[in-house]
Amino acid sequence: MATIVVLGSGIMATALATPLTDNGHQVRLVGTHLDREIISSIQETGIHPNLGLKVPDGTTAYQLEDAETAFEGVDLVMSGVNSFGVEWAGQQLAKLLRPGMHVIALAKGMHADDDGNLTILPRLLASQIPDDLRSQLTFSAIAGPSIAGEVAVHRHTSVVFTGDTPEQLERWREMFATPYYHVWTNPDFVGVEVCAATKNCYAFGAGFMQGLLDAMGDEAGDRYVNFNYGAALFGQASVEMIQFMELLGGQPTTPIGLPGIGDCFVTSMGGRNVKCGRLVGSGLTFSEARAQMPGVTLEGAAAIVVIGKAINRLTERGVIPADRFPLLRHLYEVVGLDQPVNMPWDTFFGSNGSGQA
Amino acid sequence: MATIVVLGSGIMATALATPLTDNGHQVRLVGTHLDREIISSIQETGIHPNLGLKVPDGTTAYQLEDAETAFEGVDLVMSGVNSFGVEWAGQQLAKLLRPGMHVIALAKGMHADDDGNLTILPRLLASQIPDDLRSQLTFSAIAGPSIAGEVAVHRHTSVVFTGDTPEQLERWREMFATPYYHVWTNPDFVGVEVCAATKNCYAFGAGFMQGLLDAMGDEAGDRYVNFNYGAALFGQASVEMIQFMELLGGQPTTPIGLPGIGDCFVTSMGGRNVKCGRLVGSGLTFSEARAQMPGVTLEGAAAIVVIGKAINRLTERGVIPADRFPLLRHLYEVVGLDQPVNMPWDTFFGSNGSGQA
Repeated sequence: MATIVVLGSGIMATALATPLTDNGHQVRLVGTHLDREIISSIQETGIHPNLGLKVPDGTTAYQLEDAETAFEGVDLVMSGVNSFGVEWAGQQLAKLLRPGMHVIALAKGMHADDDGNLTILPRLLASQIPDDLRSQLTFSAIAGPSIAGEVAVHRHTSVVFTGDTPEQLERWREMFATPYYHVWTNPDFVGVEVCAATKNCYAFGAGFMQGLLDAMGDEAGDRYVNFNYGAALFGQASVEMIQFMELLGGQPTTPIGLPGIGDCFVTSMGGRNVKCGRLVGSGLTFSEARAQMPGVTLEGAAAIVVIGKAINRLTERGVIPADRFPLLRHLYEVVGLDQPVNMPWDTFFGSNGSGQA
Repeated sequence: MATIVVLGSGIMATALATPLTDNGHQVRLVGTHLDREIISSIQETGIHPNLGLKVPDGTTAYQLEDAETAFEGVDLVMSGVNSFGVEWAGQQLAKLLRPGMHVIALAKGMHADDDGNLTILPRLLASQIPDDLRSQLTFSAIAGPSIAGEVAVHRHTSVVFTGDTPEQLERWREMFATPYYHVWTNPDFVGVEVCAATKNCYAFGAGFMQGLLDAMGDEAGDRYVNFNYGAALFGQASVEMIQFMELLGGQPTTPIGLPGIGDCFVTSMGGRNVKCGRLVGSGLTFSEARAQMPGVTLEGAAAIVVIGKAINRLTERGVIPADRFPLLRHLYEVVGLDQPVNMPWDTFFGSNGSGQA
């Protein structure tokens, strides 16, 4: 049986303790400076307040100052810090990791430099660690359709493990897989992680369909909703995810199945991003909608800004044609530039409804 | 301005009168023998009872015995009869059509012979018409994510027109397209129609996620639902749709965007098939669930039986390997053989979560 330490005690990091402890492993959750109350709650009552559940037996919680103790003798390290804290997490791990250790990164998003060059977050995490140590570590990630709370209550969940070292992925699969937590492995690290980041962007748009009905008020009636609209956006998301594979070097088939389409489906079904998208769809600017959700983390909106800016920069530089990624570009106009929703339908779906150039 | 006649006055055929009449065209709805009350209602009150809406100005309703009058001098013929009546519709059209006429077929499903050879429904429709007349007609179809009632109330809808004669498709696009009804054209007739048929099968499975929660009762709690399960099935549907392209000669990219993924999304959001799937997911056999929905047309369940049987036959004949279409095969076990839902997760997603062999 193995010992897994997690830096960051968010809901996904904590939910993964369920399959791990079901398999007899020990999990050590280390809170960040922002997780102090979560860790205290788990230490005192066993309950993770945001997940609304008791953490499973075999899980131990540590405050950040006890991180060194928690990292002693572990078989696997997970970085559960969200996309806003990846650089910070990398700097912490630089102090805590030892040669030969293995890291699974959970945050979803992308990093961009001023030229619009996009990097997946596990690489950003690794970049914070000095070269000599980094070369003696492995980095992997978990993606696919996975609402954390559902994992925590043993709902069937099918995910993809990806990373630079395929032989490690088999090892992590054995460690995590249970009769309800189903694991596939895919060596297309870039492709899988780009799907995971961009699905958060497109799921923001999934809120528009309901928001537009909200704006119509009584005129909308109660008989017919707006699924045709949402389905078209979902279809265009699938077209653009494949365009992202070409741009960033993923396999063109990676968005099929779990990593892109499956994950975009689950993320579109609800949550904070969709809620904010609904407010925007109803007629608020993004800034106004944002102000109605104080303190709420919106990783999808943040990813839209990073990726949207990068796409515009890459277009200026002549790296990508202006007719690629029209939905992502419009999401950037809405979220990054506070413009109203005005879907550019004619620019979608290529010439044949399936993305053909 | 053009005149369009529709054989069959179901909700989709009637909903399409909205964009057509908005463009100034005249629409003649001809009821089948099963549509007698619908036609009477439209003739007397203007209201289509199943759609719950007044048909737009410019729409005229005819009982079946007045079909010859309705077919006089028309520019376009639509077959709006559902998948159970395609052969009947073809036999009627054989009497009503004249050389040089154009047909758009709306029914979604597949036909199979005893050897498991699958045919798209527009070809089954055409096969009922004598060769010499048939060779002087064109056949097209409409697919993509489109809930009929939403079209009827002017919701944004994005669809694909397909058929054997691409130059005609442009003409139909001009006739139908409005600022809310967005039309793309795709010459991959087989591919688009196979997506439209199979999405109905997979949408049946979309009901299982809620049904499984129903079966858990209070144990399910009210905090976490079962979207991870549904998203995984949706992802596997995308894998299998691409497998269907290979089997039946569609383009491998056709399921991307509107025809496959977009349409599967909208069909999974609700309706009769999903409701029946939910009952089955909750623990009823399909026969028991079917008995709870008397008189309700279940095209998805019917398509599962046709396609599932054909796949088993094609496997016996060595045409397809036994590891293809595992979700469709299980749907057939459930719907065609009354077996309980027991998802064969390990057979899904190929080796890498994205359908790789």
